[in-house]
Amino acid sequence: MIIDGVLLAAGSGTRMRSPVPKVLSPVLGAPLLSYPYRALVRLHERVGAVHVVVPPGGLPGDRPLEAPGSVSPLYVVQERPDGTFGACEAVISSSAFLSGSSTHLLVLNGDGPLVDETLLESLVSLGEDRPGALVLTTAHLDDPTGYGRILRDPSGRVFAIREESAASASEKAIGEVNAGIYLIPRPILLEAAGRIAPDPRKGERYLTDLVARVVAQAGEVLTLSVSPEAMRGVNTQEELSLVTAVLRERINRLHMGRGVTLQDPLRTDIGPEVEIGPGTVILPQSFLEGRTRVGSSCRIGLGVHLLDTEVGDGAVLRDYVVASSAVIGPKAVVGPFAHLRPGTELGLEVHIGNFVETKKAVLGPGAKANHLSYLGDVTVGARTNIGAGTITCNYDGYEKFETVIGEDVFVGSDTQLVAPLIVGDGAVIAAGSTVVADLPPGALYLTRPSPELRPEGALRYHERRRERRKKNKRKESP
Amino acid sequence: MIIDGVLLAAGSGTRMRSPVPKVLSPVLGAPLLSYPYRALVRLHERVGAVHVVVPPGGLPGDRPLEAPGSVSPLYVVQERPDGTFGACEAVISSSAFLSGSSTHLLVLNGDGPLVDETLLESLVSLGEDRPGALVLTTAHLDDPTGYGRILRDPSGRVFAIREESAASASEKAIGEVNAGIYLIPRPILLEAAGRIAPDPRKGERYLTDLVARVVAQAGEVLTLSVSPEAMRGVNTQEELSLVTAVLRERINRLHMGRGVTLQDPLRTDIGPEVEIGPGTVILPQSFLEGRTRVGSSCRIGLGVHLLDTEVGDGAVLRDYVVASSAVIGPKAVVGPFAHLRPGTELGLEVHIGNFVETKKAVLGPGAKANHLSYLGDVTVGARTNIGAGTITCNYDGYEKFETVIGEDVFVGSDTQLVAPLIVGDGAVIAAGSTVVADLPPGALYLTRPSPELRPEGALRYHERRRERRKKNKRKESP
Amino acid sequence: MIIDGVLLAAGSGTRMRSPVPKVLSPVLGAPLLSYPYRALVRLHERVGAVHVVVPPGGLPGDRPLEAPGSVSPLYVVQERPDGTFGACEAVISSSAFLSGSSTHLLVLNGDGPLVDETLLESLVSLGEDRPGALVLTTAHLDDPTGYGRILRDPSGRVFAIREESAASASEKAIGEVNAGIYLIPRPILLEAAGRIAPDPRKGERYLTDLVARVVAQAGEVLTLSVSPEAMRGVNTQEELSLVTAVLRERINRLHMGRGVTLQDPLRTDIGPEVEIGPGTVILPQSFLEGRTRVGSSCRIGLGVHLLDTEVGDGAVLRDYVVASSAVIGPKAVVGPFAHLRPGTELGLEVHIGNFVETKKAVLGPGAKANHLSYLGDVTVGARTNIGAGTITCNYDGYEKFETVIGEDVFVGSDTQLVAPLIVGDGAVIAAGSTVVADLPPGALYLTRPSPELRPEGALRYHERRRERRKKNKRKESP
Repeated sequence: MIIDGVLLAAGSGTRMRSPVPKVLSPVLGAPLLSYPYRALVRLHERVGAVHVVVPPGGLPGDRPLEAPGSVSPLYVVQERPDGTFGACEAVISSSAFLSGSSTHLLVLNGDGPLVDETLLESLVSLGEDRPGALVLTTAHLDDPTGYGRILRDPSGRVFAIREESAASASEKAIGEVNAGIYLIPRPILLEAAGRIAPDPRKGERYLTDLVARVVAQAGEVLTLSVSPEAMRGVNTQEELSLVTAVLRERINRLHMGRGVTLQDPLRTDIGPEVEIGPGTVILPQSFLEGRTRVGSSCRIGLGVHLLDTEVGDGAVLRDYVVASSAVIGPKAVVGPFAHLRPGTELGLEVHIGNFVETKKAVLGPGAKANHLSYLGDVTVGARTNIGAGTITCNYDGYEKFETVIGEDVFVGSDTQLVAPLIVGDGAVIAAGSTVVADLPPGALYLTRPSPELRPEGALRYHERRRERRKKNKRKESP
Repeated sequence: MIIDGVLLAAGSGTRMRSPVPKVLSPVLGAPLLSYPYRALVRLHERVGAVHVVVPPGGLPGDRPLEAPGSVSPLYVVQERPDGTFGACEAVISSSAFLSGSSTHLLVLNGDGPLVDETLLESLVSLGEDRPGALVLTTAHLDDPTGYGRILRDPSGRVFAIREESAASASEKAIGEVNAGIYLIPRPILLEAAGRIAPDPRKGERYLTDLVARVVAQAGEVLTLSVSPEAMRGVNTQEELSLVTAVLRERINRLHMGRGVTLQDPLRTDIGPEVEIGPGTVILPQSFLEGRTRVGSSCRIGLGVHLLDTEVGDGAVLRDYVVASSAVIGPKAVVGPFAHLRPGTELGLEVHIGNFVETKKAVLGPGAKANHLSYLGDVTVGARTNIGAGTITCNYDGYEKFETVIGEDVFVGSDTQLVAPLIVGDGAVIAAGSTVVADLPPGALYLTRPSPELRPEGALRYHERRRERRKKNKRKESP
Repeated sequence: MIIDGVLLAAGSGTRMRSPVPKVLSPVLGAPLLSYPYRALVRLHERVGAVHVVVPPGGLPGDRPLEAPGSVSPLYVVQERPDGTFGACEAVISSSAFLSGSSTHLLVLNGDGPLVDETLLESLVSLGEDRPGALVLTTAHLDDPTGYGRILRDPSGRVFAIREESAASASEKAIGEVNAGIYLIPRPILLEAAGRIAPDPRKGERYLTDLVARVVAQAGEVLTLSVSPEAMRGVNTQEELSLVTAVLRERINRLHMGRGVTLQDPLRTDIGPEVEIGPGTVILPQSFLEGRTRVGSSCRIGLGVHLLDTEVGDGAVLRDYVVASSAVIGPKAVVGPFAHLRPGTELGLEVHIGNFVETKKAVLGPGAKANHLSYLGDVTVGARTNIGAGTITCNYDGYEKFETVIGEDVFVGSDTQLVAPLIVGDGAVIAAGSTVVADLPPGALYLTRPSPELRPEGALRYHERRRERRKKNKRKESP
């Protein structure tokens, strides 16, 4: 059994009332669409390709979908809003499909993020047992209003799915509804292509019509019962927030089960791809997203925000660390109020303190930058101490330049390092220096312009300021 | 029909156990009292005036109430705690009332924030249909303990409201209670003035006694049924937190319905006056309050706090931006960790980076201040780049002075701009400069005191420091 | 009646799947174990000692338990995992116990944080009435699965506790279970020592076996019924988060009852030892832990994190203040984005602004440091103004040195104060100074190296930069 996954992502989502395409709405840092996509991809070798059916013009963004594994999404444009069957027709007429050798299509809604791989595994098992059967999913709802009803004959066999608008009163009373996830044998779909008539009211061709067609041809239709939760779709911003809450709970429970301590799982946002080691304690209000990996026995403070960031074992991230595409070494201590930008690589036991920004900054083991600094385009050697207020002047208005600082260097406070610059191992730079040329190893650098000390000069200072204020006030109120 | 609104805000609120007057307790950044006030003001032209009945001494604060529209509150002092009727008597003896031409009084509790304009509209409609009737609101409670019960005759007509303390056992079983919102024709109130006797137990004169009086005079008493929620008052801190939760949900649902994406509506605080455009995405833990207006397709990061701030379309506010009375231009990018203080005006596509504070700072289109800077009392021209660690020295201990920076200026890192100061268009200031005098356009400014470079000087540095440490240690442990 | 408290804290907690010992799991900033410990200690003079039974090797950390009052915990190692009776035997063979004169042991689970002092008071009362009786606690559960069932004879007297594994079907139907909290007269325990046989299946000796033994000897067994909540233990990370939620709600309700305004009690974390005055308003997302004391009528902004910090009456802590072992004076104004480290002492009306770090910093009344500064190992006199970008250079790579700044000093922006250093009262330091030697009172200090102003020099600057960029690009793409 080889499956072509089909994700229906061409809907307009007008009820979201937002210019953002519905399936790209963010959920814990990942687009809505990525959730069913991820469930598909996790079926592994059984999935040959995943076709994402998109509206004309496609989905905006460089890479709307990213997920683990080797499967890349194939985008298929559905030119007209001609329904779910239309979407499948677009897939089966794509060259990627035609050149493939799949036996089945597994069709999911792009706006249904609560479907999980367990459900899909069951669906696939059923398909493996009965390879020729069309397999539907159904759910039993207390209030089925709005959903297609499952019509069964007295023997319990499904013979049709009836859309709400076409249902009779007695059909409307049926609580079993179409959950919108299908496993369709390739021959069934190819046979039906071009032969499903559009709905007279809406002009769309529905995948659900396939059921009656298969039955009419004495084919087999099976059903898999799923929970109402699994079929929940997103049509409004409020529904988006509700499925986000469900996914937040699911993901957080998973991490807690693996030995991560979440002080408040309702106030912790962890994306679907994030990994965290046991013994790590996470305070409330943190947001870990993207491909973030946190080691074991780390401590994550209040309101930490990590995107695509790697954190080594035993690292301590104090409150309000914001990091993106950074690597934080084992036992490093960062924050509070630190901003690690892409290209930051902190070695073992590096200390980054408050109000420090790093960007393309590689710091060797034991290096420290504890206060009020900007380290950009810089390499810092092991054990080097960067004083408070140090700034790498990496930009001249035209280009960015690099600063290379050796090991065991002592950079005094309020130093400006004007790049390109090399500071040799063991150099000492005194506080308040502007360094514009390379320093050899072991050098001492000092800028100490002779100051002026006027004893009792403060008196004159205050007198003048007072006079000036008096004058200025007179000007203001003439 | 012209209405005088009456807000009862003279209660002592002792159960709050706080020195803050109960009606000024903060709810999503606005005082409790402002919620019923806002509901009244939104009735528009039908409301002639809003009288706020306050305790002796009034409510503290410059402007305890601010709300949209042209109606300003009239504060009326209730000299003694003589009940709700006493409060109304204080209103009708005020010159503002006597000189007005209202036909009705609409009486609300100042501590009842969940009343909404829909309810008030219904009340007013009823009053328009039957202009001579006293209109009460009632609610049906599962547990009516503590509330005044509505007594009706066999034909269903209300003939009295019975306070809990005076109720018989059978009266106590009545589940319909007084919801505390009244529409009272002016003549009824004027007629009763001075003629309602104080309650023998509490010494207060109750507005509820008006009912029996109107009935006795064969007047008409009508009722409007409201939800239990609408009548919820605040008597304790816990109740304050509960109504806050209800209002948070109401307001957030409204914004979601308009196309705003809230990643967690339970963790997003939006004040009642805030406006947000569609397509804007707001991460958890943000607080938007006051007259904040956010455009469409903006991104708001974690824990952003905006007060009375305007944000243009497409702006990006990264995590932990704190802004107050600021204007952020379209497509501007701010934060993380930025503090925009009053008088900040950022033009189109301005970038303000981390650890930057602005105050009375007007930045032209495309200007950038990306790192560790303080910009106060300053004008920055278009496209000018402010280097890391730049400080406007706007204060001499006596007065604040202005800095004017032209367009296309390059301010090097760690520059101090000592105001008053004018930097001409296109000037370049080298890193580490203290600028104390105006710079003409196109000038290059450079302070480069000759440094001292001692080859192998670090050795001597370390030797001395080690010696000093040894000596100091000896001193410590004699 | 003198009580020896016994806290069972030797369990392995494998289901937590964390290297952190279960009883040290953090709950609102305090270890899980500290909650039952605190409940015991609050019984005051009736508690002679608290024995904490720990696994071999003890609990890690300097001071795993800290609680108010004069009672210090006595750690007793349970060498083998030989059950709850084994734990008690370890206690009664300790010299501390043998030399004491307690009449009873009060045994609590170290992982049961929801037990409160009211419950323990009731238990103790019961013990005082019947000093010879063994007193058990029981709870009635809808689903008693997994708990020891309470077996009573027809007269209602307890005659045994049956472990789940040994219970018959009819015993399993009993909903009354052992709540795991015991008051045991000293003689009963001493008599049983060495005489309780290990469970044949698990090899552990259970305290519950004491019941049958006492009954067999015609002793008295009493029970105290407790709520199911009180007996809740923690075995998984998820249970840890659930008891944390219960404790958060309990503690926050207590503070609200005392006049503290919490804008969202579900998003406010307050530790069990924290005290807060009435009229203080706390915005969401703050975390107050340890021995923090906040005065009355304070305002605490978004996301403030206080550990062991004292805040005076009327102080204002703006958003994102992080403080540890600091003292903040009355009416001080701090933040946003301030980091107060241990040893910070801010006097009356001190202002600490954004991006300011303090450490061992004592600031006199009215002193100000409003922007982008690092103040470490420093004393600042009253009314002194610290300009933006000021840095105390307190570290030379070897030692920390102190800076002493007098009263009414004006420190200009971007000043480096190289310690050790004394700045006299009333001195004025101009912007951009590096101060390396003491300044007498009233002195004016100024470093103004003569700058170079090249009219139209910017032109040359831009030309050179453009050329360099061109050259560099050529190099990159040969």
